[in-house]
Amino acid sequence: MIGIFDSGLGGLTVVKEIIKKLPNCPIVYFGDTARTPYGTKSAEIVTKYAIENTKFLLKLGAKIIVVACHTASSTAMDKLKEVFPDVPFFEVVTPSMRKALALTKNKKIGLIATRTTVESKIYDRLFAQADPEVKLYSQPAPLLVPLIEEGWLKRPETRRIVKKYLIPLKMKGVDTIILGCTHYPLIKKVIQEKAGKRRKLVDPSEEVAVEVEAFLKKHPEFYTEGEKQEPKIFVSDITPNFERIACLFLGRRIKLEKVNLE
Amino acid sequence: MIGIFDSGLGGLTVVKEIIKKLPNCPIVYFGDTARTPYGTKSAEIVTKYAIENTKFLLKLGAKIIVVACHTASSTAMDKLKEVFPDVPFFEVVTPSMRKALALTKNKKIGLIATRTTVESKIYDRLFAQADPEVKLYSQPAPLLVPLIEEGWLKRPETRRIVKKYLIPLKMKGVDTIILGCTHYPLIKKVIQEKAGKRRKLVDPSEEVAVEVEAFLKKHPEFYTEGEKQEPKIFVSDITPNFERIACLFLGRRIKLEKVNLE
Repeated sequence: MIGIFDSGLGGLTVVKEIIKKLPNCPIVYFGDTARTPYGTKSAEIVTKYAIENTKFLLKLGAKIIVVACHTASSTAMDKLKEVFPDVPFFEVVTPSMRKALALTKNKKIGLIATRTTVESKIYDRLFAQADPEVKLYSQPAPLLVPLIEEGWLKRPETRRIVKKYLIPLKMKGVDTIILGCTHYPLIKKVIQEKAGKRRKLVDPSEEVAVEVEAFLKKHPEFYTEGEKQEPKIFVSDITPNFERIACLFLGRRIKLEKVNLE
Repeated sequence: MIGIFDSGLGGLTVVKEIIKKLPNCPIVYFGDTARTPYGTKSAEIVTKYAIENTKFLLKLGAKIIVVACHTASSTAMDKLKEVFPDVPFFEVVTPSMRKALALTKNKKIGLIATRTTVESKIYDRLFAQADPEVKLYSQPAPLLVPLIEEGWLKRPETRRIVKKYLIPLKMKGVDTIILGCTHYPLIKKVIQEKAGKRRKLVDPSEEVAVEVEAFLKKHPEFYTEGEKQEPKIFVSDITPNFERIACLFLGRRIKLEKVNLE
C-alpha cells in the first residue's frame, strides 16, 4: 500500500499519476485540510504536521510514503527519515530537479511555487549540488492555489495572473520551468500557453510517480497488488467545497472520509 | 484589557478601529496563523479553535473578548457563551447587520464574504429575525483574502475580480453592501469604486468598535485604562510574510510574538 499526504487536496494530482502507472496498487491518501495551507507556515510547524501525517498513514498499512506537498518536501524530509528510519520516503522536489536538469539546454531553469517553497531555497541547494552551472530563477506565485481551488482554471483573471508571474522568468531566458506546487498541473495548459511552446514544463506529480514505479519494480517487497480499487481519501476536515475540489483534482467524484489527528 | 482574536491577521483592522476609539485601553490580540484560514474549515473545527483562542486571551488578562473573525462569529458564538458564561463577547456579524438595516432604504442588502460565512447563512438568519422584509443577496468572494494578503490592494487584477464579484449584487439592486470579512476594509476604496458611489458600504471593524466603546462606557468595571501603549500581538506561527501582512493591516511596523496553543 502506498501512503500519500499533502497539506490539502493538491496531492491528488500525485494520486492520479500513480494510479496511471500502478492501477492495482492500493493507495491511501491524507489531506490535512484542517491545517491547510502549509505554504505560509514555518518549517517547524510543517515538520510537526508531516510527522503526524506519516504516523497516520503507516497505521493504516502504508509501506512507502509519498510526501506530495512541496512545502513539506522542502522542509521536513530529514526529520521524517530520522523519525521513521525503515520507511522509504519519496518527495516531489528531487525528481523535478532531476527532470529539469535532463531537459534544460541553456542551464537556465525557472521555478514557480508558493512563497514558502521559494524561501526554503530547497531547489537552489539541490541544483547547486547537482550542477553548479545551473542558474535557477524562482518566482513566488501565491495566488495560483486559491484561483485553482476556485475552479477558475481557464478564466481571464487566471491567465492574466499566470502571465504576470511568468514575465520575470521569461526575461531571464529560462528554457525549462518547474511547476513547484501540486496544484499547478491543473492549469498546465494555461501555463504552457503563457510560457510559450518552446519552454519545457516539469510536472512534479508525473516525476514522483515515475520514481515510485521504478522503486517498486526494484523492491517488490514493498509492493502490494490487490484488486483494482478506489484510493482511500482521508482528510482532517470536510466541507462541501473540499468535496468539489477533490473532484476537480481527481477528475471524478470521490468520497472523502474525515479523521482527527490531533 | 480587551482581548481580540481572528483566524489570522485580518482582525488587526478591528484592533486599528478600537485604538482609534479607546487609545488608552490595553489590547491583546491573537492571530491563529498556524491554523489559518478558518473560512474553509467546518463549524466544528472552528468552534474548537475559538474556545482555545479565548482561553489564551483570558489567561493574559482580557476582560472582554472580541471575535474579529467572521467565520468564528458566524459559527462559534453560542458555544463560546456557554463555555465562558461570565465573559462579555462581541462579534463582527450583529453590529454589521444592525448598521446595514439602519442604512438601507430599499431593503435590498448585499453581502460579500468567504464561502464559509456565506454558507453559514448567519446573516440570512439575523436579517430574517430583525426585519423579514429585508432581502439579502450573498456573494462568496474567496479570492479577495489572498489578493489582499499579497498586498495587491490596487492592482488591475484585484479591481477586475472585485468588479466580477459585485456584478450579481448590483444586478439585484442592493443599496447597501456588507464587507463580510475583516480583510476587506483594506480594499474599501476599490470596492466603493466598483460598487458605485451611491451604494453604502458597511465595515464590520468600525461597527464592532462602536459597540465595544458603548459597552465599556456603560460597564466601566470591564474597562482598564493604562498608559497609551502598543497592542500586544500574538500569533500561533510566525514568518517574514506574516510580519509584512501585519504591517499592511495596522499601517505601521509591529512586533509579532509566537505562542503555541496546542
